Amino acid sequence: MAQNKKMVEAITSMDEDFAKWYTDICKKADLIDYSSVKGCMVIRPYGYAIWENIQKILDDRFKALGHENVYMPMFIPESLLQKEKDHVEGFAPEVAWVTHGGSEPLTERLCVRPTSETLFCEHYANIIKSYRDLPKLYNQWCSVVRWEKTTRPFLRSREFLWQEGHTMHATADEARAETVQMLNVYADFHEKDLAIPVVKGCKTPSDKFAGAEDTYAIEALMHDGKCLQAATSHYFGDGFAKAFDITYTTKENTVAYPHQTSWGCTTRMIGGIIMTHGDDNGLVLPPAVAPIQVIIVPIAQHKEGVLEKASELCDAIKAVGIRVKMDDSDQSPGWKFAEYEMKGVPLRLEIGPRDIEANQCVLVSRYNMEKSVVSLDSIADTVKEKLTECRDGMFAKAAENRARRTYDCKSIDEINEALSKGDGFIRAMWCGDEACEDEVKAQTGVGSRCVPLEQESISDKCVCCGKPAKSLVIWGKAY
Amino acid sequence: MAQNKKMVEAITSMDEDFAKWYTDICKKADLIDYSSVKGCMVIRPYGYAIWENIQKILDDRFKALGHENVYMPMFIPESLLQKEKDHVEGFAPEVAWVTHGGSEPLTERLCVRPTSETLFCEHYANIIKSYRDLPKLYNQWCSVVRWEKTTRPFLRSREFLWQEGHTMHATADEARAETVQMLNVYADFHEKDLAIPVVKGCKTPSDKFAGAEDTYAIEALMHDGKCLQAATSHYFGDGFAKAFDITYTTKENTVAYPHQTSWGCTTRMIGGIIMTHGDDNGLVLPPAVAPIQVIIVPIAQHKEGVLEKASELCDAIKAVGIRVKMDDSDQSPGWKFAEYEMKGVPLRLEIGPRDIEANQCVLVSRYNMEKSVVSLDSIADTVKEKLTECRDGMFAKAAENRARRTYDCKSIDEINEALSKGDGFIRAMWCGDEACEDEVKAQTGVGSRCVPLEQESISDKCVCCGKPAKSLVIWGKAY
Repeated sequence: MAQNKKMVEAITSMDEDFAKWYTDICKKADLIDYSSVKGCMVIRPYGYAIWENIQKILDDRFKALGHENVYMPMFIPESLLQKEKDHVEGFAPEVAWVTHGGSEPLTERLCVRPTSETLFCEHYANIIKSYRDLPKLYNQWCSVVRWEKTTRPFLRSREFLWQEGHTMHATADEARAETVQMLNVYADFHEKDLAIPVVKGCKTPSDKFAGAEDTYAIEALMHDGKCLQAATSHYFGDGFAKAFDITYTTKENTVAYPHQTSWGCTTRMIGGIIMTHGDDNGLVLPPAVAPIQVIIVPIAQHKEGVLEKASELCDAIKAVGIRVKMDDSDQSPGWKFAEYEMKGVPLRLEIGPRDIEANQCVLVSRYNMEKSVVSLDSIADTVKEKLTECRDGMFAKAAENRARRTYDCKSIDEINEALSKGDGFIRAMWCGDEACEDEVKAQTGVGSRCVPLEQESISDKCVCCGKPAKSLVIWGKAY
Repeated sequence: MAQNKKMVEAITSMDEDFAKWYTDICKKADLIDYSSVKGCMVIRPYGYAIWENIQKILDDRFKALGHENVYMPMFIPESLLQKEKDHVEGFAPEVAWVTHGGSEPLTERLCVRPTSETLFCEHYANIIKSYRDLPKLYNQWCSVVRWEKTTRPFLRSREFLWQEGHTMHATADEARAETVQMLNVYADFHEKDLAIPVVKGCKTPSDKFAGAEDTYAIEALMHDGKCLQAATSHYFGDGFAKAFDITYTTKENTVAYPHQTSWGCTTRMIGGIIMTHGDDNGLVLPPAVAPIQVIIVPIAQHKEGVLEKASELCDAIKAVGIRVKMDDSDQSPGWKFAEYEMKGVPLRLEIGPRDIEANQCVLVSRYNMEKSVVSLDSIADTVKEKLTECRDGMFAKAAENRARRTYDCKSIDEINEALSKGDGFIRAMWCGDEACEDEVKAQTGVGSRCVPLEQESISDKCVCCGKPAKSLVIWGKAY
C-alpha cells in the first residue's frame, strides 16, 4: 500500500478535507471535467459508463412494472409553467430562460425544463379521455436545468441527467400505491445494487415538492455524516389535473379527474456512491454498476506464458457475463494497482509465473483490500462469488458507518451533544408543528430530513416543545 | 382489405397528398403529439420505442469499434461558439439563446447546443497531451436545438434527438479512415436494419458542414421521389484543433495538431422509415426496429382453447428473442387487423378454432399483405424466417421504387423531361464549378445531393456548361 501511494497522484485525505477529497476523486478517477460552462460538468467516459449501468438496471425495472418511455420538448413556455400556482412558485426563481431564436426575440419566453410535470399534463389532457386510457405510466430519461448558485459535480449542478416518471391513475388509492411502489424500487436499487443503506420516508410539509400533496424520499448517510436525498417520489392528488383540465369518463359514465404521481432520480446518485464507499485510495464502486468489475494485472508479463494465461482467464470470466479487462500495458504492476484502486474497480486479479505453476491466482477486493489466493479451476465462478461478497461487504461497511453515526436524542441538548461528536442521523420525536422544525434547525443546525415510514417511538414528547409527539423524524445536515 | 379500411380512422392517401399522409401517420400510428412548444414534438411511447431500438443497435456498433459515450453540457457560451469562424457563421443564425438564469441576466449569453464540436474541442484541449492519448473516440446521445422556421415531425424540428460522434486522431489518414468507416456503419445500418437502400457520397463544397473539410452523407430516396439525407460524417482536418489550440507531443517529441471527425444521425431516420416503407394503410416498420415484431390476433377467442393456444404460441415466439404481443382485448379481429396495420407491425399471426384443429395458423406480412398458412410445429423458426423475408422484401420494394425513379440525364432538358414524370434521383455529370451547380438548380429546381463514392461516367461533359466533366452527381429535391 505504501508503495502504491507513491505511484498515484495523491488525493487529499478524506479526514483532512472531505469536500476536496470528493472533487479530487471526481477528477482523478476520470469521472468529470470542468468546462467554460459554469456550474455544468463534462461527464467523461468512465463516469458516463456508471450512469449507463444505472440506467440499464432501472429502465429494466421500470419497464417490468409496465412503464413506457417518452420524450417531451426541453422547453416550457412561460404561460404553461404558470398553470399550477405552487409549481411555478417553486421553480420560476431557478430556471434558465430562452428569449431569442436566432436573431429574433421570442414572443413568449421559454424556460429550459427544470422538471416536466407541466408538459406531461398538457399531453395527458390530449390523450386521456376514458377510464380505458388509464393508467398512463410514462417515464422520460433526459437532462434538466436548475440555475443553482453553488454547484458541485454530481451533487448539485446547473444541468443534470435524470429520469422522471409521470403517471396518471383512475383513483387516489392507485396513485398512492404507485408512489410507494416507485419509492420501493429506488430503495431496493440502492440497497441491492449500489450497496447503499437507505431510510424510506416522507418529507415534512415544509419540504414537499412544488405542487405535491406528499413527497417521499430515500435518505442515505454519507461517510462524513451528512445526509443525501437519493431519490424522490411524489403524490399529486388531482391538483395538476384540475389546473390542466385533464378529465376522463368513468365506467359509470361520469366525468372525473385522474390522480397523478411523479418520481425521479439523478446523476446525484454517483455522488452518493463516491461519498458512501470511497476511501483515501480513491473510488470504490459497487459491482452492479462498475464499468470494469474485474481488472486482470499480469505480473512479470514479459515471461513466457503469462499473457496467454491472463488472457485465457479474461475470456473465461467474460464468458459468464462479467465486465472484465486485462491491462497488459507497459506500466508497472504497482502503477496499475494504484490506477485501478483510484478508479474503484471492485476486484483485482493478479497472475504471474509462480501463480501459473501453482495453478492459482491472487484476488484483491477493492473495498477492504483483502487478498486471497484461489485456484484457477472454475475461476469464473470464484470471481462471481467474490463480487457478491464485495457488494455484501460494502453494504455492511456502510451500514456500520451509519449505525455508528446515528443518535437517538430526547432534547435539543442531546442533539447538540451528539453533533459535537460529528454529523450523522439524529433520530428525535416531533409534534408536527413547523415552528418546532424551524426551532430545531435554529438551535442545532440540523433540519428534518424525513419522517421514516417505519415508525418507532423513542419518547412521548416533541424534542423541541415537549408537547405530545406525533412522529419520529430523522434530522441531519443535507447535501 | 376493404373491410379493414372502414375500421380505421381514414388517413389521407399518399397519392392524394403525400405531406398530409405523412403527418396523418405520425399522429394515427401514435408516434407523436403536438404541444404548446412550437416546432417541437412529443415523442410518444410507440415512436420512442422505435428510437430506443435504433439507439441500441447503433450504440452496440459504435462500442464494438472502440467508441465511448460521454455527456457534455447542453449550453455553449457565445465566446466558445465563436472560436471557429466558419462554424459560428453556419450555426449562429439558428440557435436558441439563454439570456437569464432565474431572475438575473447572464453576463454572457449561452446558446442551447445545435451541435457540440466546440465543447468537445475545449475538453479535448484539456485531456490530449501526448500521442498516447490518441485516438479519442467519443460519442454522445442527446438532444440538440436549431431554430428552424418551418418544421415537420421527425424531418425538421426545433429540437431533435441524435448522436454525435467526435473523434481525434494522430494523423489525417486515420481521421479520414474514421470518417469513411462511420459513413459505412450508417449505410450498413440503413440497408440491413432499416431496409432502406442508400447512396454513399460526398457533399459538394457549397453544401459542406460549417467548419468541415469534407462532408460525407448517405442519401435515400423517399416514396414520393424526394431525397432524404439520412446521416452525415465529417472530416475536419486540423482546423478546429488550431482554433482551440489542441496539440499533442508525438513519439518523436515534436508538437503536432491532431485531426478530427464528427458524425451523426437523428430522429429524422424515423421520418425516413415512414416515407420509404409506409402505405395507405399506415406505417410499415422494418423488423429490426419494430417495437412489436409480431402481433398475435386470436380469432373467435371466446371459444375454448383459443386463448390458451395463442398464448402458448406467444411464449414460444418470445422465447427465441422476438418482440411479440398477443391482443386479447374486446375489440373485433377486423379492428385489430386495421390497428396493427396502421402501426406497421411487420407480421400478424391469426389463430382460431379451425386453425388449431388443423395444427396451423395464418401469417400475414405487413409490407405486401401476403397471407400464408403455416404449421404450428416449430412456429418460432417459421416466424423468424418470415421476419427475414419481410426485411428482404421491404428492401427490394424500396430499391425498385428508387430504380424506377432514377434518371440518367445528359442535358438540362433531359433533367426537366425526367422531372416531368415525377421527382427522383437525377444522375448527371458535373464539371465541379459552383456556378453550374447553381445554374442546374435555377433551371430545374433540383440541387446537388451528393457525389457518389462509387463513380461512373455517363458522359464526358458537364450537364450544364458542356465542359469536361469531373464527377457523376446525384441531384434531387431534398427534405
